Amino acid sequence: MTDYDLVIIGAGPAGLTAGIYAARARMKVLLLEKAAPGGQVLVTDWIENYPGFPEGISGFDLAEKMKKQAEDLGLEIDTAEVKSLNLSEEIKEVVLRDRTIKTKALIIASGASPRKLGIGEDRYMGKGISFCATCDAPFFRDKTVVAIGGGDTAVQESIFLTKFVKKVYLVHRRDELRATKILQERAFANDKIEFVWDTVATGVDGFFGIEGVNVKNLKTGAESVIKADGCFIWVGILPNTEFLQESVHTDAWGFIIADAKMKTNVPGVYAAGDVRETPLRQVSTAVGDGAVAAVSAEHYIENL
Amino acid sequence: MTDYDLVIIGAGPAGLTAGIYAARARMKVLLLEKAAPGGQVLVTDWIENYPGFPEGISGFDLAEKMKKQAEDLGLEIDTAEVKSLNLSEEIKEVVLRDRTIKTKALIIASGASPRKLGIGEDRYMGKGISFCATCDAPFFRDKTVVAIGGGDTAVQESIFLTKFVKKVYLVHRRDELRATKILQERAFANDKIEFVWDTVATGVDGFFGIEGVNVKNLKTGAESVIKADGCFIWVGILPNTEFLQESVHTDAWGFIIADAKMKTNVPGVYAAGDVRETPLRQVSTAVGDGAVAAVSAEHYIENL
Repeated sequence: MTDYDLVIIGAGPAGLTAGIYAARARMKVLLLEKAAPGGQVLVTDWIENYPGFPEGISGFDLAEKMKKQAEDLGLEIDTAEVKSLNLSEEIKEVVLRDRTIKTKALIIASGASPRKLGIGEDRYMGKGISFCATCDAPFFRDKTVVAIGGGDTAVQESIFLTKFVKKVYLVHRRDELRATKILQERAFANDKIEFVWDTVATGVDGFFGIEGVNVKNLKTGAESVIKADGCFIWVGILPNTEFLQESVHTDAWGFIIADAKMKTNVPGVYAAGDVRETPLRQVSTAVGDGAVAAVSAEHYIENL
Repeated sequence: MTDYDLVIIGAGPAGLTAGIYAARARMKVLLLEKAAPGGQVLVTDWIENYPGFPEGISGFDLAEKMKKQAEDLGLEIDTAEVKSLNLSEEIKEVVLRDRTIKTKALIIASGASPRKLGIGEDRYMGKGISFCATCDAPFFRDKTVVAIGGGDTAVQESIFLTKFVKKVYLVHRRDELRATKILQERAFANDKIEFVWDTVATGVDGFFGIEGVNVKNLKTGAESVIKADGCFIWVGILPNTEFLQESVHTDAWGFIIADAKMKTNVPGVYAAGDVRETPLRQVSTAVGDGAVAAVSAEHYIENL
């Protein structure tokens, strides 16, 4: 006996889309989310490349719309953190803190989280270090901050920061950005952003909060301190897979390996969105993954 | 010398999304569409499983929004039919009726079209046979029609037809539907729909228009005529690849084979959306494909 046909872990765009499809397919489905639905989308200030919204849409609003759509179609969403999985039998077990759920199929859409640099993130989180401009930029109004990174996220969020702060030092380890051209143009044209090339952060200074970020120029070896009140870190992401058994195959960084049907190596277990090994992590790709994973799970259950 | 960095063929959700991404990446990009932008979406009455629209959205409106988004970001869209492609050199040639365009990279997002049964589609198109309820249902107000098929499209569009027609005979070759459960429930609950199981259409009757559809029961072999004023056919799709060279690998049905990065076997040539061999053809999956294809093309061009 199972509690559900399908359990979906994670309520970002991938999980919510899988939920929309599974609910429309009249599967007995539960979506588990440990925090607020929306995933990484929630920490994205403004989305202008998800098709269908010519004026753009805030990450918060898009997450709300997807959640409402899923719930209106009958999707059950529970707030609970998955502790571990038992995948050795045909009936899968999803272990929560206070109960264990039995399900025929499972979609892992637990997303990914910002990578840390080890420069004091744990000590200074909420005291000057942040991974989320949308969340924390207003705390730095008219102040100076350091941003670290050179990809889309670093550049886009640095531009967003300039709506609040006096100045952003964008510290990047290379001498050019990886970000999309349109974002680069906007950043170069923004006189609140000063680029600090060929440089890495080595630590932060300050007792109650941040007073400065220690940096090192990789070409000259010179070390210095950038006086700043805050430090935003955008240097890549890691998969949210703490609950995952080793039986599910991942790549070297822990991203789950799935095929074109979103099938993992474990029958009945699917992966969708940022948590899987994939060439691109966008809302557009997450919704595609979610739809495919749900339909694959539906076919799997029909043929059990 | 090339005219463009990237040419995209087809302005459905896959092509428009690729265009949105390519325009944001500041590539020199042209999108070619032989008819109206929107692709198969245009013939879909109502879309309730594209995430972000809790109330659902008409195919027409969604296509308009995607097109506006792409154009606002600077995408150039031309109405022109692609006659053939020359892909043997690094610089690709896209041959139109009146000119040839040179491009560094190419995304084929030309979509797919309804499969025909060979029961008189060419003779009776516009005279009683149709593939598009959205387009033609109003012509059959208070009349009786036959619908053929058993998948999502057949069932969803049959339900739509009942807003206009007096009666729909849904003819299906098997004794159960393939469509998603929620659509099945709605169809079974709709007293304007009568199911004709285990049956195929063999031809249509009528001189000026359709007067009846000839059918054969596959279990009994019995042949009969269903009196009807129209016949809607939804029995699968075929890729729109008339312009394609044999050098691009396809599956047995002609759908283009592409990898997870949307790369075909020809360097610099990508496929996205319904035209590629893929486990699911939805707006959700098309936008994912389009985003990946554009980013892959961008990387390819940067490394030329």
